[in-house]
Amino acid sequence: MVIAVAGWQKLFRITPHAIRQIRSISTRDIPNKALPTIARCQNTAAESSTQVFDVDHESDQQFSLQWTGATPKTVLLVKKANDKKVDNALTSISQWLHNEYPQINIVLEPLVFRQFHKDLPFVCTIPPGAHSEYSRVVDFVVTLGGDGTFLHVSSLFQKKAPPIIPFSMGTLGFLLPFNVRDFQEQLRRVIEGSAKLLPRMRLMYSKYKADGSLDESGLLNITNEACIHRGTYPHLTTISCYLNEHLLTTSVGDGIIVGTPTGSTAYSLSAGGPIVHPLVSSMIVAPVCPRSLSFRPLMLPSSSIVKLQVHKQSRGRATAYIDGRDCGELLQGECIEIKKSPYPLMCVNRDDMAAGWALDINQLLKFNRTFSYPHETLFGDHGSNSDE
Amino acid sequence: MVIAVAGWQKLFRITPHAIRQIRSISTRDIPNKALPTIARCQNTAAESSTQVFDVDHESDQQFSLQWTGATPKTVLLVKKANDKKVDNALTSISQWLHNEYPQINIVLEPLVFRQFHKDLPFVCTIPPGAHSEYSRVVDFVVTLGGDGTFLHVSSLFQKKAPPIIPFSMGTLGFLLPFNVRDFQEQLRRVIEGSAKLLPRMRLMYSKYKADGSLDESGLLNITNEACIHRGTYPHLTTISCYLNEHLLTTSVGDGIIVGTPTGSTAYSLSAGGPIVHPLVSSMIVAPVCPRSLSFRPLMLPSSSIVKLQVHKQSRGRATAYIDGRDCGELLQGECIEIKKSPYPLMCVNRDDMAAGWALDINQLLKFNRTFSYPHETLFGDHGSNSDE
Amino acid sequence: MVIAVAGWQKLFRITPHAIRQIRSISTRDIPNKALPTIARCQNTAAESSTQVFDVDHESDQQFSLQWTGATPKTVLLVKKANDKKVDNALTSISQWLHNEYPQINIVLEPLVFRQFHKDLPFVCTIPPGAHSEYSRVVDFVVTLGGDGTFLHVSSLFQKKAPPIIPFSMGTLGFLLPFNVRDFQEQLRRVIEGSAKLLPRMRLMYSKYKADGSLDESGLLNITNEACIHRGTYPHLTTISCYLNEHLLTTSVGDGIIVGTPTGSTAYSLSAGGPIVHPLVSSMIVAPVCPRSLSFRPLMLPSSSIVKLQVHKQSRGRATAYIDGRDCGELLQGECIEIKKSPYPLMCVNRDDMAAGWALDINQLLKFNRTFSYPHETLFGDHGSNSDE
Amino acid sequence: MVIAVAGWQKLFRITPHAIRQIRSISTRDIPNKALPTIARCQNTAAESSTQVFDVDHESDQQFSLQWTGATPKTVLLVKKANDKKVDNALTSISQWLHNEYPQINIVLEPLVFRQFHKDLPFVCTIPPGAHSEYSRVVDFVVTLGGDGTFLHVSSLFQKKAPPIIPFSMGTLGFLLPFNVRDFQEQLRRVIEGSAKLLPRMRLMYSKYKADGSLDESGLLNITNEACIHRGTYPHLTTISCYLNEHLLTTSVGDGIIVGTPTGSTAYSLSAGGPIVHPLVSSMIVAPVCPRSLSFRPLMLPSSSIVKLQVHKQSRGRATAYIDGRDCGELLQGECIEIKKSPYPLMCVNRDDMAAGWALDINQLLKFNRTFSYPHETLFGDHGSNSDE
Repeated sequence: MVIAVAGWQKLFRITPHAIRQIRSISTRDIPNKALPTIARCQNTAAESSTQVFDVDHESDQQFSLQWTGATPKTVLLVKKANDKKVDNALTSISQWLHNEYPQINIVLEPLVFRQFHKDLPFVCTIPPGAHSEYSRVVDFVVTLGGDGTFLHVSSLFQKKAPPIIPFSMGTLGFLLPFNVRDFQEQLRRVIEGSAKLLPRMRLMYSKYKADGSLDESGLLNITNEACIHRGTYPHLTTISCYLNEHLLTTSVGDGIIVGTPTGSTAYSLSAGGPIVHPLVSSMIVAPVCPRSLSFRPLMLPSSSIVKLQVHKQSRGRATAYIDGRDCGELLQGECIEIKKSPYPLMCVNRDDMAAGWALDINQLLKFNRTFSYPHETLFGDHGSNSDE
Repeated sequence: MVIAVAGWQKLFRITPHAIRQIRSISTRDIPNKALPTIARCQNTAAESSTQVFDVDHESDQQFSLQWTGATPKTVLLVKKANDKKVDNALTSISQWLHNEYPQINIVLEPLVFRQFHKDLPFVCTIPPGAHSEYSRVVDFVVTLGGDGTFLHVSSLFQKKAPPIIPFSMGTLGFLLPFNVRDFQEQLRRVIEGSAKLLPRMRLMYSKYKADGSLDESGLLNITNEACIHRGTYPHLTTISCYLNEHLLTTSVGDGIIVGTPTGSTAYSLSAGGPIVHPLVSSMIVAPVCPRSLSFRPLMLPSSSIVKLQVHKQSRGRATAYIDGRDCGELLQGECIEIKKSPYPLMCVNRDDMAAGWALDINQLLKFNRTFSYPHETLFGDHGSNSDE
Repeated sequence: MVIAVAGWQKLFRITPHAIRQIRSISTRDIPNKALPTIARCQNTAAESSTQVFDVDHESDQQFSLQWTGATPKTVLLVKKANDKKVDNALTSISQWLHNEYPQINIVLEPLVFRQFHKDLPFVCTIPPGAHSEYSRVVDFVVTLGGDGTFLHVSSLFQKKAPPIIPFSMGTLGFLLPFNVRDFQEQLRRVIEGSAKLLPRMRLMYSKYKADGSLDESGLLNITNEACIHRGTYPHLTTISCYLNEHLLTTSVGDGIIVGTPTGSTAYSLSAGGPIVHPLVSSMIVAPVCPRSLSFRPLMLPSSSIVKLQVHKQSRGRATAYIDGRDCGELLQGECIEIKKSPYPLMCVNRDDMAAGWALDINQLLKFNRTFSYPHETLFGDHGSNSDE
Repeated sequence: MVIAVAGWQKLFRITPHAIRQIRSISTRDIPNKALPTIARCQNTAAESSTQVFDVDHESDQQFSLQWTGATPKTVLLVKKANDKKVDNALTSISQWLHNEYPQINIVLEPLVFRQFHKDLPFVCTIPPGAHSEYSRVVDFVVTLGGDGTFLHVSSLFQKKAPPIIPFSMGTLGFLLPFNVRDFQEQLRRVIEGSAKLLPRMRLMYSKYKADGSLDESGLLNITNEACIHRGTYPHLTTISCYLNEHLLTTSVGDGIIVGTPTGSTAYSLSAGGPIVHPLVSSMIVAPVCPRSLSFRPLMLPSSSIVKLQVHKQSRGRATAYIDGRDCGELLQGECIEIKKSPYPLMCVNRDDMAAGWALDINQLLKFNRTFSYPHETLFGDHGSNSDE
């Protein structure tokens, strides 16, 4: 698809002067992406893959990334907005990539492209109208920012997603294993096919009207969690939760969360859910402030189909949220259905996943900080002085 | 192997009079068991199996049981002790089996055999010295009693275990899907190869001395959980928990539990762990009364190797428990290692697993009992009378 | 104060025909209320009181109600809206009171008065403009409905509140100890001075602007809890919590609750707070879905002054709620202050408070429902059959 | 009472050489203690007290210590065993006291006396047989060590206890507000009557046999908690909990804790109980690993009488623990009763209690450590780059 400059101009209100500086680009000129081979680590026989990575938790292992035949031709750089450090990082990475791997196309999102194309004349973009081009051309994605940036990339690839290499600006994180200062080493490993990949299961959300018909607008991938919450509605909302069409429970309270292992350290954790390693193939069901003493978080098989329905007699309505984003109000009788997405996110990861995860839950979550307070027992502390 | 009556006499102190009444039996006369085909439900291609069922949680489905070529030749009946209702059930089942399937050998444990062989002259036993015969000859197991009886069967088959069909005396349960009054229907389904099997992951326990050497005595299968607990030791015990050789955390408190999904509704639940569906391939790590505000239960991949070590500087020692059974004291520096057993238990199950599980957590655990108490909000309840 | 009929007409849009049927009433004609003596139970020396009951938790006991010199002259009947059973109960109670105690004035709220004055020509009302008359004339209050009705009465008496006798329509409850079918017995006990009173602590709420000045609008009594919650605001809100001007903690999450013992079985319980007996003189501070593993509910002395401030750097705003009612948005830097109200609610209660409370937490909250599931240990269940 | 040196010799096996060095001492020579005036802080009228301080939680305030007429004449120094730093501190404090306040008798416990009397010839002791002398002569107590040392002092004074000034060796703590390096300043404040006192409620424990008769041996003060626990008994124990003779609940599990506010940061916290400010007049009832999803901690009025009974049909027995110390096994039907002790501990405290407590729960318990992990929402983090 050739970018119609006129369309560009209209959409982005770019001045004629700016347009002249836009590198003439056609995403049709960008070749289809290189198909990588995703090999299960520590297995000798690499399995070829058509990149619909089905996360095989039988292995409970990471995958290794290799490029079959071709090398990667196109990278998408996604960044957090309004952050000077991030902008500098994007510039450094782009220039380094351009020098080291001149054959690789560097794609930015349109607004980011507008911000950088003067200083980085070699970058290109995919215009808003050609959204599907992302899936066709992008070999791997670099994210610069926080978890929100990562979640944004997840939303860009509702179906097959290329491997993602997430950089933080300094703070490591569950979703951000790499510090941007190490970008050269990490990018080389990806491009040259020696990186480890952690598959992160996603869920799929669909919305049904009270008459049972599908609300087409509501088909979305979930990275952390779907949640039905009463929001500011003063009445507690009554929600029925179904497992494979069987009523599991009916809950009155603030809401219910259905989350991925990745989401187990997000909102679900605040609601009292367990910490789930990303390789556990499972869905979490956790209540938010239930009017019950006995609602304990549930771990369901990842093959489950979970339905959350605002009860027909519920006094309150509810709002659906995906990864913290408002997805519209649910009236009495309406429901959402959540099941495993066939499209996990393949995240470039540290080589030693167990060590990394242990570090993360300790450093990020401040897991199991034992009291300093020495509640010594009488005998333990005082012992031999006692003479009664 | 021919039973040496002399040996019997010595071990069980059976009087000569009693011995004369023992049916002459040789387990060598019992043929090798029939190899069943365990087919994944809803898959067309049945996979043959050598009965080292590797629980394939990719499918998250039940299995179906079929007997390849041969029909089952030997059943082991295991019962709870000192319960009249259970004794009557054993008699009824044995007589029915003997009438309906006279070709099937009915094996009882030695003490049970002593109790019943007069009234049921067709039953046989495997003497204490020939323990390994259980694995060679038993095609399937019937349990009569409670969870303890089920756990006992698990301990009889430390390696490959035949399918188990557990009957309760009336109360259904997670481990006891069938009421004994339905025994005819359920046994027919098993013998004729139309039953559904739920694989229950087991864990494997080994004990290491402080110098790192393996304590051979301590190799055991775990059905519910392994636990290190301070017992009555007055000092809190310091336990380090390692994941794949990386230190995960060091906990001071009463103890730490490492459990299976099956065990998630046992001691782990009391300690605050989540409710885990048996098809989630995972291990639970849950603390018992930790001296920390921030020890949240962890869900690890079933491929994990978890090590619990009594810290070298721990003031208190600890005791290891498997499925509630005391497995000996652990001194400072000693540790236990827990990993997935290659030998799951294949449990005959209700056809509709999701419905059954939903029923169980509601009826057995009294899950999510919403308050009766109507905490109505001001506006909701009172509403239009308000005139301020 | 003489009711200006013209004003009545205008405010309630009563037709001239309706007005003729209004009983001519002047609340100025209603005498000041009878001052009761509130005696601490089981103490011989009754202490006189000017009805600013200071809840003396030293005693941890109920109080007994006696009328000094005079008998009660005026009762306020408050009812839930739109409930036929409640309407019938109001009619029965009014007629019974009118027959048995014709000297007692029966006051209804204006809208209720409009509904009933034709059928119950002896009832009277206090018009909206004369709100302060409630405190001057009402000797005791009868509520008919649910907790919401009770909370409404609490809001009618921001300062001194007369004793309240709450009736449920059948379901007993923490706030609703009496079934309406027993109204004759219970009303007699109150009127004749032999009832037991349970003092329920209230809290007081005030709102401060970011510059520290008091927002006069926001001075309110709290019966259950004050809560700052992010509502539907997508960002987690950062709230600082101060105890007597000292920073206690800064919490990121959905919100923070400050509750009374009475409120411990309301929203605080859903958020994970303890169950607090109403005679424990304390405030609960409980987080709602905190982004922390280590926020445990706090019990503070009732003399505490707690301040919740939306942090100046909080990305999200918040909303203040009192007893579930929206009290307006709080911007960054704004705060609310909560302290003990000098005006508890004196609630007529069952004679044996401990028995009643034990019953309530069991029946209403389904407290401590032990599993049906028999997780018997190996030795316990199986025992003597084991022959290994 | 004159110490019979012969008795000394026998009891402590002191060699003749050692005896010659023992300072001739008669506790009869030590005068009765000075009666302090305990004034409620911020009240103008100081109330005299006969040192049975009844903790008046109405005020929710600290008390101030003043000596009426006389100045303190005797101090008891109690120390942790086997700690060189503690021994040095004891020497320094004793020498300083002897120099600065030569009129004050310095009493050590017998074994400590043996350790120090050569180096500190001015110290004296109260021999084991004269235990009741502690109450008669000790004006205030200094503790050097940890919480265990503090608990030991509590056990020395089963009835009236003199003010205690607890010093830590560096780590501050809930029970240890003062660092020993500040001992001069703190001791001066106590001796000269300008210290603040925090009353810490104690509970009282009595044990009853299955026939209802009192087991005299079991009358004890509780500083942190009483606990019934199954210990290593493999079966879960069934315990009935009564409130003022009314059955509150029957629990199956590891055990039940009844604790003081002081104990709320000890074992009760590990079991999931709330953090209770020491001035909240209340008892905590918290379960240890209950076989129930719905056992939430309870806060009862301090006037409650709580009874824990091993259920007559309980399969398991139990052990009673007070402040972590084994108090003997309880058979089926036996019970313990817990109620408020009339003898609180008056603890010298920091002047600003609220600030100190806030510091303690943050520093000691690591209360509410917010995640570092930035779970930003899509809109929050990414925002303006999004162009879908």
